[in-house]
Amino acid sequence: MKNLISLIDKKLDEYMQIVYPEDIFKAMKYTLMLPGKRLRPVMCIETARLLGCDTEKVLPSACAIEMLHVQSLIHDDLPCMDNDDFRRGKPSNHKVFGEANAVLAGDALLTFAPQLIIEKSKGFSDSQIVKIIHEYTKFAGAYGLIAGQVVDIESEGGKLVKSAEETLDFIHLNKTAVLFRLAVRIGAIAAEADEKTLELFDNFAKKFGLAFQIYDDIMDEVSTFEELGKSVGKDKASGKLTYVSLYGLESAKTKFYKLMEECYGIIEKYNSAVYSEILNMLNDRVK
Amino acid sequence: MKNLISLIDKKLDEYMQIVYPEDIFKAMKYTLMLPGKRLRPVMCIETARLLGCDTEKVLPSACAIEMLHVQSLIHDDLPCMDNDDFRRGKPSNHKVFGEANAVLAGDALLTFAPQLIIEKSKGFSDSQIVKIIHEYTKFAGAYGLIAGQVVDIESEGGKLVKSAEETLDFIHLNKTAVLFRLAVRIGAIAAEADEKTLELFDNFAKKFGLAFQIYDDIMDEVSTFEELGKSVGKDKASGKLTYVSLYGLESAKTKFYKLMEECYGIIEKYNSAVYSEILNMLNDRVK
Repeated sequence: MKNLISLIDKKLDEYMQIVYPEDIFKAMKYTLMLPGKRLRPVMCIETARLLGCDTEKVLPSACAIEMLHVQSLIHDDLPCMDNDDFRRGKPSNHKVFGEANAVLAGDALLTFAPQLIIEKSKGFSDSQIVKIIHEYTKFAGAYGLIAGQVVDIESEGGKLVKSAEETLDFIHLNKTAVLFRLAVRIGAIAAEADEKTLELFDNFAKKFGLAFQIYDDIMDEVSTFEELGKSVGKDKASGKLTYVSLYGLESAKTKFYKLMEECYGIIEKYNSAVYSEILNMLNDRVK
Repeated sequence: MKNLISLIDKKLDEYMQIVYPEDIFKAMKYTLMLPGKRLRPVMCIETARLLGCDTEKVLPSACAIEMLHVQSLIHDDLPCMDNDDFRRGKPSNHKVFGEANAVLAGDALLTFAPQLIIEKSKGFSDSQIVKIIHEYTKFAGAYGLIAGQVVDIESEGGKLVKSAEETLDFIHLNKTAVLFRLAVRIGAIAAEADEKTLELFDNFAKKFGLAFQIYDDIMDEVSTFEELGKSVGKDKASGKLTYVSLYGLESAKTKFYKLMEECYGIIEKYNSAVYSEILNMLNDRVK
């Protein structure tokens, strides 16, 4: 996994060249290159590899998913959204480059990601490229990631169209699970996997995504700024709807362990050291 | 041209369905459905038609270009950018839906546009779809539209990397001409035109785009709010770099007429009533 992260970091650095007008490319690159776990591109590459597709072939698509993820972080941190001054232990994008550039850097990443898939992918058929970009557009927009963010913001303002339980699941299936789903789905499409295999990984990613969000909610409750590299305790202070606030810490943990158990069960037969490492890492931190 | 505008309005309305979470789709649709000249999709459809491609076939791509245009308007109007409270005579997106939703509505349009091209286009090969989306990503991002916006903002802050003349041309080739170029290029790709024909229309769109920006700068100087549906005189008040502020009103008009003359010259042989109407409209208003 460490090697995969290094490879992804190297490629992100290579793909993101600084040209005129430099300020926008610098803003895009700043948040992109902050050290991270790169879970989404790792899961994309590992899924592709398990199903028979070369790492080289899927690398541009994997990096595109990380760019989409970073785009959502930059815009989420804006003063008009979550108003977070720190991200991955460093000042967030708008604190360094100003709000206007942060909005534009996010916009630019959102279209640079599919541009990268088209320009840098080698060995895919046009039909595969269209499928990959179709997945990207569906999951990145108002039917995916943005739907989750909108309902999240509305629920903070006390506006609930559905029950609290349904709303919370909707938010995190869309806001969090959606990028893990996109990662494994693109990995499966890259490997030309059959529909059944794609659905198996998709189901894994849904459960993993929810577990990851519960993990995140728990960490916000029990960690320090130094451990997470971002503000903590904000959820509680703002009365935000989270798995911990809705179900309590112990029930949230029970939910988390149940989902993790199901994840281990689904992925077991692939004997993946990388997936084991990811699941174990989350499990160990919650303990 | 009136018929084309009605057709585009009808299709935009049809493509943009309001589903849960409704607020985001309403925000996207609000600015999208404000009455406009729809110049970019009209030019896309007319270019395709002149080169032998059915209107039906290119309609989703034409509407996608309008969505990209509207996305750029929504984000440009934000308080952290141009801070404009009105657009097309109505309160701008963030005044109605709040800043967070306006940022997210723009993001969502940016990925909905290529999704639409993939889902609604009929009769294109996968290779054409890839080419169309490639153009879209190149022109929408940091190598196109966003480059123009960034340099525009920086020049307002007094930061000039190049000369004022070069900077002004760079801004408007990217901020304004880029969407007209995208429109005619996609029209040409839809019609499977040869490279020479595509370049001819591209060259037309560059000149038209610059002329259109000079027209816009002149209108900001000489029109009223009622005539334009947006704030006027802001350029002058803010000391903004425009064709009028740099060259003076009379020289700006001379530049405009020269570019328009060249546009007429390039497009003449196609005998297009639609293009004549567009060029005449601009010419008449400047007079």
